[in-house]
Amino acid sequence: MTNEPARRPGGRSARVRAAVHAAVAELIAERGYGGCTVKDIAARAGVADTSIYRRWGDLNALLIDVALARLTDGSPLPDTGDLPGDLTAYAAQVARDITGPAGPAIPRLMAALSEAGTTARAAFVEARSHQLNTMLTRAHDRGEPVITTVEILDHVLAPMYTRVLFGVGGVDEKYAADLVKRALERAS
Amino acid sequence: MTNEPARRPGGRSARVRAAVHAAVAELIAERGYGGCTVKDIAARAGVADTSIYRRWGDLNALLIDVALARLTDGSPLPDTGDLPGDLTAYAAQVARDITGPAGPAIPRLMAALSEAGTTARAAFVEARSHQLNTMLTRAHDRGEPVITTVEILDHVLAPMYTRVLFGVGGVDEKYAADLVKRALERAS
Repeated sequence: MTNEPARRPGGRSARVRAAVHAAVAELIAERGYGGCTVKDIAARAGVADTSIYRRWGDLNALLIDVALARLTDGSPLPDTGDLPGDLTAYAAQVARDITGPAGPAIPRLMAALSEAGTTARAAFVEARSHQLNTMLTRAHDRGEPVITTVEILDHVLAPMYTRVLFGVGGVDEKYAADLVKRALERAS
Repeated sequence: MTNEPARRPGGRSARVRAAVHAAVAELIAERGYGGCTVKDIAARAGVADTSIYRRWGDLNALLIDVALARLTDGSPLPDTGDLPGDLTAYAAQVARDITGPAGPAIPRLMAALSEAGTTARAAFVEARSHQLNTMLTRAHDRGEPVITTVEILDHVLAPMYTRVLFGVGGVDEKYAADLVKRALERAS
């Protein structure tokens, strides 16, 4: 027993989710995906296998939930006052995220996502697009030149993802900022 | 018995490889990766499981070999006379490749590659870089402005891979050509 408040609202259900998500990230970092089974995740998280199957259905669905959570929980949306500032902060967050402890999980999460069918993939893309559209709408309302979410995917996110995937060229905040600058040169 | 010459040199060993590679592509297209086991691949290819284990070691190594083969066998190197022509033809090949029958396999192959350790990944990157460097060296020798292989990865290949992965925006030869044009505007 402690007096610390729960870190997330929702009580036991939210604690189970947080423990399972943390277990997935740890196991992937330690062993890669070959060693990442529902049984191992349950043992690491201190929950029953059946709790995972009941809640997520299968391992693939759990992996997608982890990927979605990394997008929607992990990255508070920047609001710096202008689009170059917002996009630079956003791209720096992505660079930190994909080169951090969860980085090695990303290619497998992408694979799971691409096999999950159009609904799960659309939910993932929707989550990321929603974040970007909020920034772009603010910029448009301020009268700034803007680009599209697909242009951000093409010219800011894609090069970072692909560098990490292939282990080529390196990804850091400077590189992320250069990609944003280059993409915004075409803003109108 | 037929009078047709073998399509590849190497006799039985090469035929086994071709049959196994074709089986991998078919099974992935039909079932996704969940249903793609060494046993199923062997059955489809008409070879013994043990032939696959002896030759490739495990499923992951086989998937990487298939990915490498798609790069090195599948795409004859364009030689159109100038770099814009070569890169446009190359990018169009990649666009056809990743949106064709083997397209659904690519995210999983990327995941396998990223988990395969630095040696296998370096071999993969090396194969693609070698193709690109041949084109870039020819262009340099002709006195044309050039870009680097990493710039081609960042600004031509990465956007196409990521669009296919996320099912966003579409990939065709026109889009590939636009990416090349945009990348070459910075050639020096």
